[in-house]
Amino acid sequence: MRLMIQILLLFLVLPAGSAIQAQGHDPLPSWNAGASKQAIIDFVNRISREHSPDFVPPGGRIATFDNDGTLWVEQPMYTQLAFALDRIRALAPQHPEWKTTQPFKAALAGDMKTIAAGGEKTLLELVMASHAGMSEAAFGKIVRDWLQGARHPRFQRPYTELVYQPMLELMDYLRANGFKIYIVSGGGIGFMRPWSEQVYGVPPEQVIGSSIETKYEAGGHGPALVRLNRIHFINDKGGKPVGIQRFIGRRPILAFGNSDGDYQMLQWTTAANGARLGGIVHHTDCKREYCYDRDSSIGRLDKALDEAEKEDWLVIDMQKDWKVVFPHSGARP
Amino acid sequence: MRLMIQILLLFLVLPAGSAIQAQGHDPLPSWNAGASKQAIIDFVNRISREHSPDFVPPGGRIATFDNDGTLWVEQPMYTQLAFALDRIRALAPQHPEWKTTQPFKAALAGDMKTIAAGGEKTLLELVMASHAGMSEAAFGKIVRDWLQGARHPRFQRPYTELVYQPMLELMDYLRANGFKIYIVSGGGIGFMRPWSEQVYGVPPEQVIGSSIETKYEAGGHGPALVRLNRIHFINDKGGKPVGIQRFIGRRPILAFGNSDGDYQMLQWTTAANGARLGGIVHHTDCKREYCYDRDSSIGRLDKALDEAEKEDWLVIDMQKDWKVVFPHSGARP
Repeated sequence: MRLMIQILLLFLVLPAGSAIQAQGHDPLPSWNAGASKQAIIDFVNRISREHSPDFVPPGGRIATFDNDGTLWVEQPMYTQLAFALDRIRALAPQHPEWKTTQPFKAALAGDMKTIAAGGEKTLLELVMASHAGMSEAAFGKIVRDWLQGARHPRFQRPYTELVYQPMLELMDYLRANGFKIYIVSGGGIGFMRPWSEQVYGVPPEQVIGSSIETKYEAGGHGPALVRLNRIHFINDKGGKPVGIQRFIGRRPILAFGNSDGDYQMLQWTTAANGARLGGIVHHTDCKREYCYDRDSSIGRLDKALDEAEKEDWLVIDMQKDWKVVFPHSGARP
Repeated sequence: MRLMIQILLLFLVLPAGSAIQAQGHDPLPSWNAGASKQAIIDFVNRISREHSPDFVPPGGRIATFDNDGTLWVEQPMYTQLAFALDRIRALAPQHPEWKTTQPFKAALAGDMKTIAAGGEKTLLELVMASHAGMSEAAFGKIVRDWLQGARHPRFQRPYTELVYQPMLELMDYLRANGFKIYIVSGGGIGFMRPWSEQVYGVPPEQVIGSSIETKYEAGGHGPALVRLNRIHFINDKGGKPVGIQRFIGRRPILAFGNSDGDYQMLQWTTAANGARLGGIVHHTDCKREYCYDRDSSIGRLDKALDEAEKEDWLVIDMQKDWKVVFPHSGARP
């Protein structure tokens, strides 16, 4: 019935000739012709054509995408860390003790070496101090306001413009073929949701990420969900399949990532019967973006790169596979 | 554009006269005419008509439904508890120590008084012993297999047939008006998802519930998500708004429950600007179902019933408002 309606519509509402044009239409114009692009198109055809042996009904077409380094720039530091540092600077007048306490002293001085040396513990301290203590609604507003004014240090553009045009096209292409797209990120769920729909077309309920505890409070000004100074869940590495199962309850058939933090998500997605596609965005483009993999502290890609060939995961060579990197570097289709 | 297409379709694919028929069609045939039915229809009209001052775009049309006692029977005990008890009986040969250890001894003897006296701690022990230690996939199969054979002690029917026909119609009606429907239950997420789509039309990713911890394991037979003997989250009372925010990231505009466990969900949903609808299924029908409220240990409805009038929540009188209770007690529309 749906197909019939679609066919009817095709002849009705499109100008003459459009059907043919639609057939020849390139769904991934920012991707150079080559093996990567072809593998994506072949996979979508395999799972979406009704008489294909690998046909997957629309409800099962679940695709999961990492965010940092897969959909937007993560160098020279995660955007969420840039946000945390700015936020700590903004809050410093209310916390005179930060002038002499680490890691806040380092954060206020922009001493990234000390922050990096502190590892995950330091990052968590900075995140907690900057992300907790307010309602979810208030935090969403803080994030949106920050994104309006913040600029990436190298590109001097809003972070939400430093998303990868080829990946936007890939998500559009998948959606047009009945996929439900989820973001599955180690980043904070409350940091991504305020802008994911506008930037990626991914509504808040399809964003999975790390989270802090929240508490329901029925206060005098009406009820609120208050963000607490305590981690609830880290959605990274082996946590990604756990988060996927908890939120979606189905196994994805397509997953894209860019680092070892995505290894388990790629493995969980592709180590199953039926057609599956795993993809890795390999940052090979020093000129247009960044080049890094095995030795980077941010977005380290080592084990997953080793396993990619054995597992038949697609390794996207940013330099060769992508005609443009950012929406502003080429005309949008 | 969408509207234009819809209008075109109306004239194209429907037989002559259908449009008029559609207008007169009763979307809630199992609801008796009266204030409750009218309030539901009025609310849907208010938020879905484009020129209504209370118009809500489709993405914001989030509806949340409790499960036990709101969508299916919860007496004489939660279905999940009946499952846990059967499961403990099935596992008993592998656990000879259960013959002499509480609460397993009571569970095996069907001694509900001892189990009830043990309160939440006892329930958790029984759930853990029966719900953990296998993969998520294996647990889903166990649940499905059990539901095939299990029968409700009074109605002698599969539990999945003891769903409320008027609530199925309400969910269909909301979906037809652009709502996204979530189950938000204190019950286990892994217990509901294997059948929620088939029974309610609610896909697994729209089921929110209590959960136990899971662990990702890349074993020799391929990776698996293993259910651990540890609570992750209790999605009840103040946990319901927390779960709603975590999974959906938007505030519902409609919520239905039936007990004090739903109080905070109803409050969170309705204590906001714009049109909101909160509803309580009041079990007033001793003959066709059960009658209980303030004094019931299962599905106690006390505080929420007191607040309903003040908060302008709809109290559904099962006996008066519902023409039929179960799908089998009347012809499906």
